[in-house]
Amino acid sequence: MTTPRHPDGKRAIPATTRLGKYDQAMSDTTETTPGWLTEDELETTRARMPILYVEAVPVRVDDSGEVTSIGLLLRIGADGTISRTLVSGRVMHHERVRDALLRHLEKDLGPVALPRVPPSLQPFTVAEYFPTAGVTPYHDPRQHAVSLAYIVPVTGDCRPRQDALDLVWFTPAEAASPAVQNDMPDGRGALLKQALAHVGHSY
Amino acid sequence: MTTPRHPDGKRAIPATTRLGKYDQAMSDTTETTPGWLTEDELETTRARMPILYVEAVPVRVDDSGEVTSIGLLLRIGADGTISRTLVSGRVMHHERVRDALLRHLEKDLGPVALPRVPPSLQPFTVAEYFPTAGVTPYHDPRQHAVSLAYIVPVTGDCRPRQDALDLVWFTPAEAASPAVQNDMPDGRGALLKQALAHVGHSY
Amino acid sequence: MTTPRHPDGKRAIPATTRLGKYDQAMSDTTETTPGWLTEDELETTRARMPILYVEAVPVRVDDSGEVTSIGLLLRIGADGTISRTLVSGRVMHHERVRDALLRHLEKDLGPVALPRVPPSLQPFTVAEYFPTAGVTPYHDPRQHAVSLAYIVPVTGDCRPRQDALDLVWFTPAEAASPAVQNDMPDGRGALLKQALAHVGHSY
Amino acid sequence: MTTPRHPDGKRAIPATTRLGKYDQAMSDTTETTPGWLTEDELETTRARMPILYVEAVPVRVDDSGEVTSIGLLLRIGADGTISRTLVSGRVMHHERVRDALLRHLEKDLGPVALPRVPPSLQPFTVAEYFPTAGVTPYHDPRQHAVSLAYIVPVTGDCRPRQDALDLVWFTPAEAASPAVQNDMPDGRGALLKQALAHVGHSY
Repeated sequence: MTTPRHPDGKRAIPATTRLGKYDQAMSDTTETTPGWLTEDELETTRARMPILYVEAVPVRVDDSGEVTSIGLLLRIGADGTISRTLVSGRVMHHERVRDALLRHLEKDLGPVALPRVPPSLQPFTVAEYFPTAGVTPYHDPRQHAVSLAYIVPVTGDCRPRQDALDLVWFTPAEAASPAVQNDMPDGRGALLKQALAHVGHSY
Repeated sequence: MTTPRHPDGKRAIPATTRLGKYDQAMSDTTETTPGWLTEDELETTRARMPILYVEAVPVRVDDSGEVTSIGLLLRIGADGTISRTLVSGRVMHHERVRDALLRHLEKDLGPVALPRVPPSLQPFTVAEYFPTAGVTPYHDPRQHAVSLAYIVPVTGDCRPRQDALDLVWFTPAEAASPAVQNDMPDGRGALLKQALAHVGHSY
Repeated sequence: MTTPRHPDGKRAIPATTRLGKYDQAMSDTTETTPGWLTEDELETTRARMPILYVEAVPVRVDDSGEVTSIGLLLRIGADGTISRTLVSGRVMHHERVRDALLRHLEKDLGPVALPRVPPSLQPFTVAEYFPTAGVTPYHDPRQHAVSLAYIVPVTGDCRPRQDALDLVWFTPAEAASPAVQNDMPDGRGALLKQALAHVGHSY
Repeated sequence: MTTPRHPDGKRAIPATTRLGKYDQAMSDTTETTPGWLTEDELETTRARMPILYVEAVPVRVDDSGEVTSIGLLLRIGADGTISRTLVSGRVMHHERVRDALLRHLEKDLGPVALPRVPPSLQPFTVAEYFPTAGVTPYHDPRQHAVSLAYIVPVTGDCRPRQDALDLVWFTPAEAASPAVQNDMPDGRGALLKQALAHVGHSY
């Protein structure tokens, strides 16, 4: 694939290129040109505006809708550290929230995961990632991101792509355990526990 | 099917026998004996306690979760009047809310409707049906019913059973139209419009 | 106050009289006669129907709505055991959910607590207390209770009455600590943690 | 007050200067310098990213939390057209959603309105304003704005400032009437009806 060029002639790069461990979860490889920002523009914007994200907690449910397991992506950072993340990524210009959810679910879980994006846009919570640690439970050193968080049952076959090593399914109790929580820094473990609480599991 | 007998020897009848137009939507024909009340007991209880119900708005959604149509049950009352209703019914003793939802969905939509009961029990609203009209927008001359209301995507084939004549699918705009709303008395039309508002459609 | 008599001449007693530790939180001393059940009737009903409850988590908030502390009622059971509970109680016949909330808040926190019952009836969760332990995280040996749970800011002076020894305010972190959680058996600690998660605090 | 200067020497202007009818509701006059964008930067960003907004429906409630009236801001556009709007505005960089809500409520309703920002960040809906009409019920010709919508009881004295002519209180039925809805173009009337539905009023 050749590198697209921005209409104004400057070399455009995908919005999330050159990012670290955390960002690997959010590479927006299917972005279309109009939504792209030059690298400088993105850096500038990140220092000036909160960036809108969506976050999805992939779950398996039984016939009665009860959550039986939670899927977490396993990633290895540039420094070799292991982390587990939820499905997440930016909402692009002129993209609906539910289309962004669907796009990131497909990107992270593959084309046959068959996610069931909920009929209502009411999120179970809004997670505010601040560049300064401690303002909220969520932290993103790179930017101020505001994330609409949803629980999304998936019924198909999940095949993580490219940057994710694996998708591992945990029971609700396992997902809330220190072993898993410790692999989810910067508030992602907290967000997962909020999701569990929302579906009736609190530990 | 023979009439079951209550353990204490009194003749037990299903909780919703002998009910009018409204109740046809809620006949609990699959109730097991321990949950049954004698007719007198049910009448007494209905005059003393709020009765817990679940209500489901069956919807079709597209791949992105957007609601494309709403399914309404068509019924003909003893007096020949036509009405449209949502899926609803009582929660039985020792029955989980999500099992009650599933049971009533199967009862009203048939065994292959494949309903997707939501992973969270948080309802989009709580509808309070009062025996006195005007206390709330909802009215049930027979009892004080408190109903937990959910939006439930169904993906299979819906085959209404016994007391329902038909299940008709409407677009969100049609469902909110006066023609349909007029067929949904006692606040059911209002509840449907609340469901539509919750999924982003308000008229 | 004299003991009211039931219209049929049987001696009527308040619905929650003669109850144990758990029930002290729910004595419905302000019930009016029509809503009362004779003791036998209540026992019978409890064995046949889910009983509708409301539950309130009293909180203090700062100007921005952020929860700064949670109020828990301290009680001493007949056997001397200490427990902490939320505000809770039955919804009576012909009583709106929001009126039941207000009544139980006044009963447990006194007349000048100035609770702010939320404008929407959408609860943050529905807690299902089963007489059989293990069906859900919530347990009530006495009955099948289904509880609509709300977070309620209170701004006034809280003066617990009669059966409650004290109202103690905890920070969110303290409320989620094992020390406090251990004093909240039968799923009430879990419900409190769900409330905390709903307002952005998960531990 | 002198016009602040951006650190890089370019003349900085408030993010929402020079905007039309709609924007008058959103002038961010209390922004601090770091959150400001130059006019060109804001225009560029608006063409590339969804912009995060908060929206508040100011309501009066009775003791039981029931909504009794809704406050709408009356504005006169440059072309003399009258419109009614909710409280709304951008979330700034490094600003919490609840602080943005509070800031815009103070800006639009004055310093003694005493708004009660809800304890949970879960919005009743997410309104997606697209620059292209028809993608969603919401439209903003100027930008792609994604708005977290909350119902906010206010108990104090509301004194609209500067650009708003007046704050007018309506009953729920009046707020849903065609007369009022017609003054709320671009989906704001629809959002108001969603808010009403969420608090139990649907028309």
